[in-house]
Amino acid sequence: MNSSTSKFPVEVAVVGATGLVGIEMLKILNEPEYKGRYKPVLFASTARPEQGVLELKANVKQLQKCAYVLNGATSEVAEFLAENLVPGQVLIDNSSRYRMDPGVPLVVPEINGDLLKSAPSIVANPNCTAILLCLTLAPFKEAGLARVVVSTYQAASGAGIKALEELEAQLKALGRGEPLPRPEVFPFVLAGNVISHNTPVRADDVAGAGYNEEEWKVIEETRKILNIRHLPISASCMRVPVRRAHTETVTVDLKEELPLSEFTRLMSQAKGVTVVNEPTKNHFPMPLEAENENLVRVGRMRKDASLGKTYHYMLAGDQIRKGAALNAIQIMAECEAIK
Amino acid sequence: MNSSTSKFPVEVAVVGATGLVGIEMLKILNEPEYKGRYKPVLFASTARPEQGVLELKANVKQLQKCAYVLNGATSEVAEFLAENLVPGQVLIDNSSRYRMDPGVPLVVPEINGDLLKSAPSIVANPNCTAILLCLTLAPFKEAGLARVVVSTYQAASGAGIKALEELEAQLKALGRGEPLPRPEVFPFVLAGNVISHNTPVRADDVAGAGYNEEEWKVIEETRKILNIRHLPISASCMRVPVRRAHTETVTVDLKEELPLSEFTRLMSQAKGVTVVNEPTKNHFPMPLEAENENLVRVGRMRKDASLGKTYHYMLAGDQIRKGAALNAIQIMAECEAIK
Repeated sequence: MNSSTSKFPVEVAVVGATGLVGIEMLKILNEPEYKGRYKPVLFASTARPEQGVLELKANVKQLQKCAYVLNGATSEVAEFLAENLVPGQVLIDNSSRYRMDPGVPLVVPEINGDLLKSAPSIVANPNCTAILLCLTLAPFKEAGLARVVVSTYQAASGAGIKALEELEAQLKALGRGEPLPRPEVFPFVLAGNVISHNTPVRADDVAGAGYNEEEWKVIEETRKILNIRHLPISASCMRVPVRRAHTETVTVDLKEELPLSEFTRLMSQAKGVTVVNEPTKNHFPMPLEAENENLVRVGRMRKDASLGKTYHYMLAGDQIRKGAALNAIQIMAECEAIK
Repeated sequence: MNSSTSKFPVEVAVVGATGLVGIEMLKILNEPEYKGRYKPVLFASTARPEQGVLELKANVKQLQKCAYVLNGATSEVAEFLAENLVPGQVLIDNSSRYRMDPGVPLVVPEINGDLLKSAPSIVANPNCTAILLCLTLAPFKEAGLARVVVSTYQAASGAGIKALEELEAQLKALGRGEPLPRPEVFPFVLAGNVISHNTPVRADDVAGAGYNEEEWKVIEETRKILNIRHLPISASCMRVPVRRAHTETVTVDLKEELPLSEFTRLMSQAKGVTVVNEPTKNHFPMPLEAENENLVRVGRMRKDASLGKTYHYMLAGDQIRKGAALNAIQIMAECEAIK
């Protein structure tokens, strides 16, 4: 039975349905491309009957009836879901729990969707910053990626609803000239500031010493997604007072020199990417414009001023959408198509 | 006559006295370290008698009586000042007009203050982003700088008072839930956004094609300040919704490998720099804390995850103070000391 004739709608468990990623998943499943094909069943740690949200642990039977389980909640929840998975079910996990597990594919469908052909029972959805980055690096795998350096300008909402609300409360106080509320989610005030990413910094005696966990995810996951085990890549991850959509500046060394026109052509033809590049207007990718978009905006492609094989560019993409919820749903749709 | 016995106070023309840099110069000249040693004479394009501000072009005689002329205004004003300079006078110019002039020293006193021994009549004050960066690169000149990649998170005030006011008006509207006023200084809304630096992008047929003018200044001026003519260096300059103080993430390849402890020791001993690095608290350089400080905050020093001779760190510094006004006054003080 191919996908076009399979029984619709397919039941999909959306776990963490009241979080930012879960809410976005439900929104996307209700958009024309997916509506009618999938029937979401909502789960969270606390029941909300008025919204149709079931308490997860008390409703494992309902969970196990779903063909797909999309996890928008934590790594702990991911473990619970994996333990309760039944044969034929697929867990598409947005947490970091299984991403670096050698037996679990880490999938950005535009790049390595073919890994889904092995019909894995768990598929890991990558870190949001890594997804956006990888979509812009994949077009250069053939020319050979020699080195990547990325700096990020990450939105508050990447840390969840409470982080977003914290920034909004600060902006409100700032705009009214009132004293800023004391930060509780982030270690420091984010409004009017730039702070190093709020994940813990890795200790001196482990790999990646001095990198924070976000940076380390970008490094390890990019290598796994692109399937370049020892790719020299480094990240500096920062939070900026932006509500939604991440921005990144990227420096890439290729193994061979390409004319800039060829570099730009490869980028513009990449799947999941759209070029926004109007130098005379200084109009390039911006998080405010990338909100709610499915594609990653890329621009400012230029050759290095000194080094022949080095290129620079910037990107902006909605980290809740393509960086999380949409990517997970695309994985599910790809699984369905392969069936 | 050495400086300790010279006639005090020395008359100093502050040109552009009503701009952000001019105001900061006047503030610094009134601080204990400089107060009484210098007597500021205020000039601007428009007279403001109630603030003691003279109209520049109508008062060239008063201008020419000053031992030093500090320009906080534009390149056009710099040309006017250079044309009207009298023998013995020193123009310390914060505009970009003379920075790349081979006959004009481009000075960060902690790095190349010895260039002032030749008693130049014009001294150029570097770009703010370049000053902050160079203070953190200078300690590694001996180990050999092989390559530098920098991404910036620049404050609105770097573009002047009107840009700062524009961001503040946007933040006020945002905080009150009102529609944002239409941007006039920056090409796009900055509040809640990240925008590529607002300087023009260089055309395809010139050196530095695709870089914006701010990035190109950072590249060229860093090479001149550090006196490494062909240093491979690249910059990605971005504006973030921060009022004051610039942040930068820096990747530096050295010619020889140093233990991280030695890299950090060299950084901590550098002049003009202070290390802010508390990994367990995620407390690193932040623009909100760098406001009004004389030193550049540096932190997050770490070794690259793949490459032995590569290091990463971040910095935050007050671009109006050390990035402009203070550096100019330090140049003047150094000229006085050398006399």
